[in-house]
Amino acid sequence: MFETLLFEITDGRALITLNRPDVYNAFNDQMRKELLAALKEAEKNTAVRVVILTGAGKAFCSGQDLKEVLANPDRSISESLHKGYNPLIKQMRNMPKPVIGRLNGIAAGAGCSLALACDMVIASEEAALSEIFINIGLVLDSGSAYFLPRLVGSALAFELATTGRKVSAKEAVTIGLINKAVPSDQLDTAVMEMAAYYEHAPTKAIGLMKKMLNKSFQSDLDTLLEYEAYCQDIAASTSDSKEGIAAFLQKRKPQFKGE
Amino acid sequence: MFETLLFEITDGRALITLNRPDVYNAFNDQMRKELLAALKEAEKNTAVRVVILTGAGKAFCSGQDLKEVLANPDRSISESLHKGYNPLIKQMRNMPKPVIGRLNGIAAGAGCSLALACDMVIASEEAALSEIFINIGLVLDSGSAYFLPRLVGSALAFELATTGRKVSAKEAVTIGLINKAVPSDQLDTAVMEMAAYYEHAPTKAIGLMKKMLNKSFQSDLDTLLEYEAYCQDIAASTSDSKEGIAAFLQKRKPQFKGE
Amino acid sequence: MFETLLFEITDGRALITLNRPDVYNAFNDQMRKELLAALKEAEKNTAVRVVILTGAGKAFCSGQDLKEVLANPDRSISESLHKGYNPLIKQMRNMPKPVIGRLNGIAAGAGCSLALACDMVIASEEAALSEIFINIGLVLDSGSAYFLPRLVGSALAFELATTGRKVSAKEAVTIGLINKAVPSDQLDTAVMEMAAYYEHAPTKAIGLMKKMLNKSFQSDLDTLLEYEAYCQDIAASTSDSKEGIAAFLQKRKPQFKGE
Repeated sequence: MFETLLFEITDGRALITLNRPDVYNAFNDQMRKELLAALKEAEKNTAVRVVILTGAGKAFCSGQDLKEVLANPDRSISESLHKGYNPLIKQMRNMPKPVIGRLNGIAAGAGCSLALACDMVIASEEAALSEIFINIGLVLDSGSAYFLPRLVGSALAFELATTGRKVSAKEAVTIGLINKAVPSDQLDTAVMEMAAYYEHAPTKAIGLMKKMLNKSFQSDLDTLLEYEAYCQDIAASTSDSKEGIAAFLQKRKPQFKGE
Repeated sequence: MFETLLFEITDGRALITLNRPDVYNAFNDQMRKELLAALKEAEKNTAVRVVILTGAGKAFCSGQDLKEVLANPDRSISESLHKGYNPLIKQMRNMPKPVIGRLNGIAAGAGCSLALACDMVIASEEAALSEIFINIGLVLDSGSAYFLPRLVGSALAFELATTGRKVSAKEAVTIGLINKAVPSDQLDTAVMEMAAYYEHAPTKAIGLMKKMLNKSFQSDLDTLLEYEAYCQDIAASTSDSKEGIAAFLQKRKPQFKGE
Repeated sequence: MFETLLFEITDGRALITLNRPDVYNAFNDQMRKELLAALKEAEKNTAVRVVILTGAGKAFCSGQDLKEVLANPDRSISESLHKGYNPLIKQMRNMPKPVIGRLNGIAAGAGCSLALACDMVIASEEAALSEIFINIGLVLDSGSAYFLPRLVGSALAFELATTGRKVSAKEAVTIGLINKAVPSDQLDTAVMEMAAYYEHAPTKAIGLMKKMLNKSFQSDLDTLLEYEAYCQDIAASTSDSKEGIAAFLQKRKPQFKGE
């Protein structure tokens, strides 16, 4: 189906593996397009209730493939952002399903932005993140200017953005950049446990909460309270919510169907 | 005075205790109304310079009383948010006096939002917080979508919102969700020490700072600088500020009157 | 050149030292004006690629000199904010060069705001920060209402603002208020190492990233993605970026000129 990705749907999970390990899963045009298509497919497929994004081989994603840039000297970066990266980042944040980043190795540059665009990141302790844009005189892109301060605060955001220093998975947890770091041989267990939870969770409510949280920092309290009430009525009308309440009253485990 | 609350004013403190311990202080219509009335009374009473909010028995507040929901099948949740919870949360954030949450036990669902709406939370190490909405297929409400990311950053906010996992008081301090956790037998000492500070603090300046901080994340630097200057002129005209400067120059402890 | 400051340019660094050690480098009119002039000079001088701000003697900066306030009873605080402090804070955040705070000792009141307005703060372990405004019945000013929540989150911001409690350098690192704390005899090494990095960094990209990060919290994702793309085209057109890519391909260290 895809040349630069592995795409696998098992039960309620879509597992997307960036698969250009010889270039540390660097982005080229094709991989950007295929990743967008895979994410759209995962959104459309009603069986899918959680998406896992990871990389093949040693790296998660090393960012933009510089060879591609040099082969297209007339293309502006903003064009490749507008047509390639930004639609990807928007798709990840706007799709009403949880996206777990399985950080198997280095996430650098646009690859770091890709990791931060996941709703939640679980990393191998051998993984690391680096905003390497500055190493070639560039600025944060693909959403990192949005994500970084919201994750680690202003002072650390400036430091990580302007020095590009590599942040180990453990430090990343301490500063709030990612959710969890585990020894590499426990990465699959940790990711699959979390995926199993989301696979059986009330997916509609999670999708609504993504939208609510996307609005949070830039909205005032009154706006958020209104929006919470609007979303809560939608959530309360789902069959999952009815099942949740019934199960609570019957003192049994709920069977959520994502509907 | 109230049936679902204990409400006690001692010196400059109002102590509000949610008092439905048999249902872990779950919210029903009456408790929402009485809590709003108690908060308004604490705001109006000029002797009161700090509010302490806590729960009777084992829990702080277990959120919405589901029995009430089932007894009123025709009432939309948004109606109970608009008429009940949201006015409460706005009252807590807009009243120009500090509100200390004394977290004696579990704060769950709307009870978690209630804790996060306090200006400051001091917890027993046996207490915990949980955004349990998702367990019954619902979304964050009563302000949690506003508070969570401002307290713990985006990645943890998503995790806590969508898994509902219980956060111990100690972890809550580490991630910035609450201010302090102490062994349960030291909770009263810790809360009363803090309350004693606020009882003798320049209350007007604190009220102004609540307003300033409420605006912070969603405003740019120029807007905040302007607003700081506007508020500073008001603060400088209070008798507490004049007393503060006089005491400083006379090298004595100031006697603030909250005026 | 200046009476209240030491101002020294060495290679690519401007070192600004607040120099009223007998009053713990408290601000008076003259120091505000001279500091603004020094910062503007550092911005204008194309040789300067990083600014270091520190204090002479034991303190970093103890804030407003109260003697000046008492000598000018007719001047409103908002006037001194509008004409003195706020232009300073805006200059620091808007100048397209990194500003490192070298926190040698206490930063209090407007001196705390000055430290937080730096892009990055490296402190001696003996230093501390305190929002002491409340001690004299005043509110946060000079940007602290903007910076505090963006650095430490809402709950801690309220606590630090309303209690004025002194935060040690070590705690300040833990909560995200500053970047680094080192034993006092290693402060110069730590600051100079960081300054040396910025002195040879792609300064234009750093200036652009300051602008991007300034917009982050109060903007939504789409706005930031657009702005990233706009800035990235500018960054990509700099000679530093061309040098960065060339060096990467030639597997050598880049020689950035800040152009």
